Amino acid sequence: MNFTRRDFHRLAAIAAVSQFLPAVGAQTADRRIGWCIIALGRISMDHFMPAVKMSQKGKIVALVSGHRDKAEKQAAIYGVPASAIYDYESMDAIRDNKEIDAVYVALPNSMHAEYAIRSAKAGKHVLCEKPMASSVADSRAMIEACKAANKKLMIAYRCQYEPTNLKAIELIRSGALGQVQAIESANGFNIRAGEWRLNRKLAGGGPLMDVGIYSLNACRYLTGEEPHDIKANSSVIDHDGRFKEVEENVGWTMKFPSGIVASCNTTYGANMEGMYRVHGSKGVLQLMPAFGYQGLHLTAEIKGSPDLDEPSPERDPVQFAREADYFADCIWENKTPKSDGEEGLRDMELMSEIYKSAGLPGL
Amino acid sequence: MNFTRRDFHRLAAIAAVSQFLPAVGAQTADRRIGWCIIALGRISMDHFMPAVKMSQKGKIVALVSGHRDKAEKQAAIYGVPASAIYDYESMDAIRDNKEIDAVYVALPNSMHAEYAIRSAKAGKHVLCEKPMASSVADSRAMIEACKAANKKLMIAYRCQYEPTNLKAIELIRSGALGQVQAIESANGFNIRAGEWRLNRKLAGGGPLMDVGIYSLNACRYLTGEEPHDIKANSSVIDHDGRFKEVEENVGWTMKFPSGIVASCNTTYGANMEGMYRVHGSKGVLQLMPAFGYQGLHLTAEIKGSPDLDEPSPERDPVQFAREADYFADCIWENKTPKSDGEEGLRDMELMSEIYKSAGLPGL
Repeated sequence: MNFTRRDFHRLAAIAAVSQFLPAVGAQTADRRIGWCIIALGRISMDHFMPAVKMSQKGKIVALVSGHRDKAEKQAAIYGVPASAIYDYESMDAIRDNKEIDAVYVALPNSMHAEYAIRSAKAGKHVLCEKPMASSVADSRAMIEACKAANKKLMIAYRCQYEPTNLKAIELIRSGALGQVQAIESANGFNIRAGEWRLNRKLAGGGPLMDVGIYSLNACRYLTGEEPHDIKANSSVIDHDGRFKEVEENVGWTMKFPSGIVASCNTTYGANMEGMYRVHGSKGVLQLMPAFGYQGLHLTAEIKGSPDLDEPSPERDPVQFAREADYFADCIWENKTPKSDGEEGLRDMELMSEIYKSAGLPGL
Repeated sequence: MNFTRRDFHRLAAIAAVSQFLPAVGAQTADRRIGWCIIALGRISMDHFMPAVKMSQKGKIVALVSGHRDKAEKQAAIYGVPASAIYDYESMDAIRDNKEIDAVYVALPNSMHAEYAIRSAKAGKHVLCEKPMASSVADSRAMIEACKAANKKLMIAYRCQYEPTNLKAIELIRSGALGQVQAIESANGFNIRAGEWRLNRKLAGGGPLMDVGIYSLNACRYLTGEEPHDIKANSSVIDHDGRFKEVEENVGWTMKFPSGIVASCNTTYGANMEGMYRVHGSKGVLQLMPAFGYQGLHLTAEIKGSPDLDEPSPERDPVQFAREADYFADCIWENKTPKSDGEEGLRDMELMSEIYKSAGLPGL
């Protein structure tokens, strides 16, 4: 086993951040859920797997990958036996691996449904990356399959468990911000040519599905309301040939039952730092960056209160570790995850409306 | 004549900022256009009139007001003779006052057209505050009247003459930002109960007309393009009874011919600092505050260039002085102002579309 510089940084990060996690309690010290990682891409290898290693309630016990070499290297790092390395054809055999409690699905979007459903049928709980799927129908099928198998389904909406975002929600719910009037949110990045995210069959859509979903989901968790009157524009500029299959830019406005009006933007053509500003009658709060793996920064100016300026000390992959441990609790305590399949489905339905309003096919 | 503390601060500001104006050239030293101020509200008394006093090319020679006492006090400050104080009935007599070259119309929006047209008919050039009018028809009538009288008509889009905004435009036009993809802009404030701006007959509309127009106009001058596919939402929350006549919040998205997608927000229900962010393939620029009378602040992160962080040193009322002197040049050099009646009309037409998209009557 060769340690790379990336491995070193990963372990250093784990050491640095373990203080932010809850202390290991006596009753959980020997109890960990076994994770099977489905797909060894960047988010698995650089974020989720190091997170499980630093988590209090999980361990990596199996891998599913189309690349045996890559899988063996990761297996060595995490102590996964060779017998627990599966490929996409053989993965239904996870049914017979009693070490596996849950799978983490981090495949390209359009493959989420198939592997989430196969996992549920194999008797495993499912934590699936966002967007939940590439179609509304697939999303519904995932919910049904997990229900039929009596297995938990959680969509990996990291930010719903992250303290800075939770503090923003709390400031709003407590009334500190007064009557909320308007929200702006944006999130985007300048995508590299050749990414699977630019392939419609794999991604199902462009920046809206991948990063705009953060703004959409944030507007919902910040308000605690469901939007209506969704109106959108989309464009493909394609000044350098990357955008033959998916949209490049999407802007949309939506309204909430209380009257809050939100306007959002996303792009694959520019590095658009993820952010939101929430404007209330008594003050404003801003999270910028709002959605990243680390470095989140909350500021607020509220009448009658000292200004808030709270950079989050948490470093990647703490957010992923918290998410993994939350799912462990859901399994052990038989709780429905806050970001369950229904929550993922609502975003899928809303993104479908956004696309249709912009003159594109729905999801 | 009593000097108030406000007068003192105004004069101190004039002294402090005169360095930012062009030096008085020999050919303009004895030449100033005579301004007639129509309506003595806050923007006239606190901003435009002190600005003319510090300007290089103007002087205040006449006042129109419904309040003789107030007018006499202002006349004393600015050395305006009692014979040059008019009321709304007598103002057509400005025709006979050869000292007056131009009027500054700073009445409630719905009165702009009548007084701009009467001024043009009296042979005076017209600088009119934004929004140009409260209807598209009135805007067209103003353009026609000024054309028929062969008088200049300029809409007071301060930001189109302000160096920080001009620098933002230049960064975009020069290509430094690469291919522009998306713009976000917002502008709003928490309005006081009882303001004329809350009266539909006087204002013609709510925050969109008053402050959202800055975001709309900025998206147009930043891109140099005319938007289409305008889609909007509007709401009235009215948690404290201020919003019986005009809308409280408006959010909209629009698209430009090059594919740029903009999303904007405005409100009268929260102090929403005016801002825009422009996202390009090579970097991002932000102006925040973007539209105020002072304190504007440009930041930019552009690939391959040092980060920009440029707070504007200019203090109120320098922007107004620049605007007034620009109009003097237009008159003397027989130039069409950059922000002419057609420019004002385009915003009126677009705001009409925004309202209609939001399910409200057009303008």
